[in-house]
Amino acid sequence: MEPRDDGVSGEDSLIARYFRPLATDPGAFGLIDDAALLKHSNNDIVVTTDAIVESIHFLPDDPPDTIARKALRVNLSDIAAKGATPAGFVLTLALRDAKDEWLAPFARALGEDAAHFACRLLGGDTVSTPGPLMISVTAFGRVPPGKMIHRNGANVGDKIVVTGTIGDAALGLRLLKDQIAGNALDASSRDFLIQRYRVPQPRNALAAAIREHASAAMDVSDGLAGDLSKLCAASGKSADIDLQALPLSEPARTLLDTGAAEPALLISGGDDYEVLCAIPENRWNSFKQASRSAGVPVTAIGQVTDGNKLPRFLDASGQPITLKRLSYSHF
Amino acid sequence: MEPRDDGVSGEDSLIARYFRPLATDPGAFGLIDDAALLKHSNNDIVVTTDAIVESIHFLPDDPPDTIARKALRVNLSDIAAKGATPAGFVLTLALRDAKDEWLAPFARALGEDAAHFACRLLGGDTVSTPGPLMISVTAFGRVPPGKMIHRNGANVGDKIVVTGTIGDAALGLRLLKDQIAGNALDASSRDFLIQRYRVPQPRNALAAAIREHASAAMDVSDGLAGDLSKLCAASGKSADIDLQALPLSEPARTLLDTGAAEPALLISGGDDYEVLCAIPENRWNSFKQASRSAGVPVTAIGQVTDGNKLPRFLDASGQPITLKRLSYSHF
Repeated sequence: MEPRDDGVSGEDSLIARYFRPLATDPGAFGLIDDAALLKHSNNDIVVTTDAIVESIHFLPDDPPDTIARKALRVNLSDIAAKGATPAGFVLTLALRDAKDEWLAPFARALGEDAAHFACRLLGGDTVSTPGPLMISVTAFGRVPPGKMIHRNGANVGDKIVVTGTIGDAALGLRLLKDQIAGNALDASSRDFLIQRYRVPQPRNALAAAIREHASAAMDVSDGLAGDLSKLCAASGKSADIDLQALPLSEPARTLLDTGAAEPALLISGGDDYEVLCAIPENRWNSFKQASRSAGVPVTAIGQVTDGNKLPRFLDASGQPITLKRLSYSHF
Repeated sequence: MEPRDDGVSGEDSLIARYFRPLATDPGAFGLIDDAALLKHSNNDIVVTTDAIVESIHFLPDDPPDTIARKALRVNLSDIAAKGATPAGFVLTLALRDAKDEWLAPFARALGEDAAHFACRLLGGDTVSTPGPLMISVTAFGRVPPGKMIHRNGANVGDKIVVTGTIGDAALGLRLLKDQIAGNALDASSRDFLIQRYRVPQPRNALAAAIREHASAAMDVSDGLAGDLSKLCAASGKSADIDLQALPLSEPARTLLDTGAAEPALLISGGDDYEVLCAIPENRWNSFKQASRSAGVPVTAIGQVTDGNKLPRFLDASGQPITLKRLSYSHF
């Protein structure tokens, strides 16, 4: 560490150069204070925190701009699933070094996403580490008092609904790691799946519809099977899922049809960042309409059933398939 | 990673075992939801985030209970300096492994501090890393609307005030690393300084007095010299500090008097986690009285002066000393 005579440390100048331009929310105080402010309002504040770690949630040679977007978006996905409107975020960056060629595109992409999702940088901490890069984000959302959607409200007979398509990110990661054969895919299909791994598409446009219609909701981050198990356990219910109804992208369908991938990978692979929710039967039409207005595709894939047990994933013949693992776990 | 057939991952069972018992705030939802809730109130929410990293903010063989306390307390210190009342925190833990003998005392101490400071665990994320341990905390405080104390309000003539004693933690760290000679100290004096490094004493008892009296405040985390420079720069002012007035503990005084340590180390070493504030002359007596009631020692060490330049630290003969570095920087 170089002594400096201007009272400005390397850390401060890094923050001033790359992150102060992003701190446009008045509550960020231009990042020159010790703390940020979420101004009081007649809303509850939803708080979520998710960290992404090099070699686990992203790969060492992933572009810095996609890493930035993923760090923020995995948190935006939680905010959306809780029915909340983004209100800002704080960032902890653990870096091995402070290289312009990495930090410049990282900060630029972070700023673009923060603007796009109206979720501005409020503060943060930057530390050095000899270990893997790690980006920890704590994000905030606002909901009307008492209106946050929980995991534990699902009722028997509710439809189990997911947004978008499931399994793309798991396939993208296996393609990047050469763990599945991608020769049935053209270049753009391959890129599509990889991009689904690198840059989630959080469903914040659907937050109001979720808040109005869902009895329970969460985002799918660790794999549909494991996350649905959590929603069922929290609700004291189970679920039957029709695997034939699972919304798949064309490239995912191709990999399934050619035998390059198994259905189990798609539902336990993680990194989807789609919303999983339970919608009461009598709200389904209204929810579908609201989803269309929001431009977010939704698909009913099964229903909530009685009994506090693991959900079942039924194949074309109505038989439950066996899963060796439900989701990713760090330990 | 072992496949598990109970729908519960190792990560989930780690959270359930060690951290769910701490999540007693109703807004934590027992850590079984994706997000926590800060209920709306007629207060602004102060948000601060600080990470501590193994080998930088704590040493690899520091006891897990002191690491837990430090992770939370460095954030509580920011909350206090902003004049806010603790409202809860979220935790990101990056661990190499999940060993009971480390996690049990870590979680127990974290729970004790969370209860003591009325700042409960609201949520978190646990990830694995091959690198150094890292604990990132984002903490929340409540202040009446518009009443957060900033860095930038200091006025010419305000007294510069610090709580407690300065430099103990810097000395404790150097003793642990054998970088200074400790043979002038008895065992309990040595332990005192080391404990000051390992377990900060955040000044939350003083928050209301700071809110009522201070024109500017921040906590001293990176060294008094650097942090005072930041407060001055934010306020567009300078300051003259009388080094003779600096509040020192007996063990610190001993190390200075025997020549084992230089004054420069005490004011640029960091890890103090005391409050630094500017108090208008006409509020000083009232602030002193409020501090006595709160049981927090405060000392006036200088005053705010005109001009947007680095503060001066004056020795016994009134001459400014030269500092090679003002504070710790990660880059």
